[in-house]
Amino acid sequence: MEKVVLAVDLGGTNLRMAAVNENGQISYRAKCATPRDADGPEIVRSIDSLAQDFLATAEGARASRTALGLAAAATINGRDGILTKAPNMPSLNGFEMRSALAERLKIPVILENDATAAAIGENWLGASAGYSNSICVTLGTGVGGGIIIEGRPLRGPDGTAGEIGHICVEPLGRECGCGSRGCVEQYASASAMVRMARELLPDFPGSSLHGNCDITSLDLYEAGKSGDELALEVFRSMGSYLGIALAGLINVLNPEVIVIGGGAASGWDLFINQLQDVVQKRSFREPAERAKLMRSGLGDDSGILGAARLALSSNL
Amino acid sequence: MEKVVLAVDLGGTNLRMAAVNENGQISYRAKCATPRDADGPEIVRSIDSLAQDFLATAEGARASRTALGLAAAATINGRDGILTKAPNMPSLNGFEMRSALAERLKIPVILENDATAAAIGENWLGASAGYSNSICVTLGTGVGGGIIIEGRPLRGPDGTAGEIGHICVEPLGRECGCGSRGCVEQYASASAMVRMARELLPDFPGSSLHGNCDITSLDLYEAGKSGDELALEVFRSMGSYLGIALAGLINVLNPEVIVIGGGAASGWDLFINQLQDVVQKRSFREPAERAKLMRSGLGDDSGILGAARLALSSNL
Repeated sequence: MEKVVLAVDLGGTNLRMAAVNENGQISYRAKCATPRDADGPEIVRSIDSLAQDFLATAEGARASRTALGLAAAATINGRDGILTKAPNMPSLNGFEMRSALAERLKIPVILENDATAAAIGENWLGASAGYSNSICVTLGTGVGGGIIIEGRPLRGPDGTAGEIGHICVEPLGRECGCGSRGCVEQYASASAMVRMARELLPDFPGSSLHGNCDITSLDLYEAGKSGDELALEVFRSMGSYLGIALAGLINVLNPEVIVIGGGAASGWDLFINQLQDVVQKRSFREPAERAKLMRSGLGDDSGILGAARLALSSNL
Repeated sequence: MEKVVLAVDLGGTNLRMAAVNENGQISYRAKCATPRDADGPEIVRSIDSLAQDFLATAEGARASRTALGLAAAATINGRDGILTKAPNMPSLNGFEMRSALAERLKIPVILENDATAAAIGENWLGASAGYSNSICVTLGTGVGGGIIIEGRPLRGPDGTAGEIGHICVEPLGRECGCGSRGCVEQYASASAMVRMARELLPDFPGSSLHGNCDITSLDLYEAGKSGDELALEVFRSMGSYLGIALAGLINVLNPEVIVIGGGAASGWDLFINQLQDVVQKRSFREPAERAKLMRSGLGDDSGILGAARLALSSNL
């Protein structure tokens, strides 16, 4: 019988589930909105409900449910199976998710931080497959990071390692939600790019983005592709700042691949040249030549596939 | 018979050797100036000559020479035993040091980058002893770095990992020898501090450092201890910039200890408050509380003891 695990991606907005086999094929998907201000037991019920829906399918009935992997936008205490801190879902702070889920579903559960799960997913089936040392950067609402060193995910004693978004790239720069200022998240996340675009509007009277009250990073990309100078300036600036952060990581970690994903990665063509230039100028030659900058191979599925990978390994 | 290894610290200025036992006790020391513009075979002869001097002693005759560990100010290809790149000793670039030394001395030889060796030494017998995740920062002519993650030294596929001195802390700042600008090495090395002091002289007409044509980092420390405002300003600035770099490392690596050594660490009392403040402000609370900032416990011996540790382990 084919071995299938359940994988869950628990974000502040959506709760997604997939059934994944040993080859990484996703045979079933479901999602729901993450219940607003939900506490732990409520999230557990939501996950269980998605799981029961799957088991009610013909495929679910055939599958041997062996384990569940959960990737969450939270700091994870892997030893005790606790969501230590979930900035977008504060009612989950300190919740013993692993035991609660395992009791409800009667299968082993493994937890992982979503950015680290994305790095594991990319390393299994995506852009960094086959490499032992990789970094995965996710440019979304914030800038997330996952790091794999010699094949092992870097979590750190508090589970907080990999906070690439909070590398400082402008010491007197923008205030950041983390309490510091000038973090790369303030210049290279999708939200930061939209903010920069709004701020630049007065300087670019001819921009096609005037009159758009709700600029998205996709709007920016489309404007940039049509040659809009404001949009191109935002992508250049984003590429420069991201380059400063990645150059530091290249000097410190000597990675083989840096995978870039998340919403803002859709603007790849518009920032990659600037990013490459800055990385080459600002890091040592040998590790800079080594480090391939690659676009995510799995898109939105990197985290859920990373969670599946962990669930599969935990059962080998 | 007591097991003793030979350990060598090969720097651009001095070549030092020690005989070290399994407890990390140094029973013999010798040094010579690193031969100027020396090629590989000449360095090998110098090391051999120091080794023969030791063997001619009563203790040397009694000791079982089991291995030699060499810490060098160079990028190391550990697999092939090559000094890939030695910025201060360019005639050694590409030299097959391991086989050359092993043939001459008839014992196994192990090579390590000096900053990584310092981290290993501190982790064995110094300030980070007992911790699995540590970083060692050396504030000398440059700013060196060695990283240990889950007990394993981080070298990277090119042996270039740990270049903490080339984290950018001022994007439009001072040009750095590495080709980038605003690297922390330009603000927190002993040389950078002396340069900053010279630049600030006109602004501090009452400074005791006026008339000193050859300011050293020790002069700065002594002036600062006596309340000299110029010197104190240099230490504050140095502490701020180093804090930005360390906060980034704390966010990315979640270390348990950061050990600070090298010549400029002698000014510890004058920069540690500023450094602590900036680190606390600029990094996440949990990993910032975890990461202890500690002064090197071994001083100049951290590298040579790290090399000894590797030589001892290679023979277990």
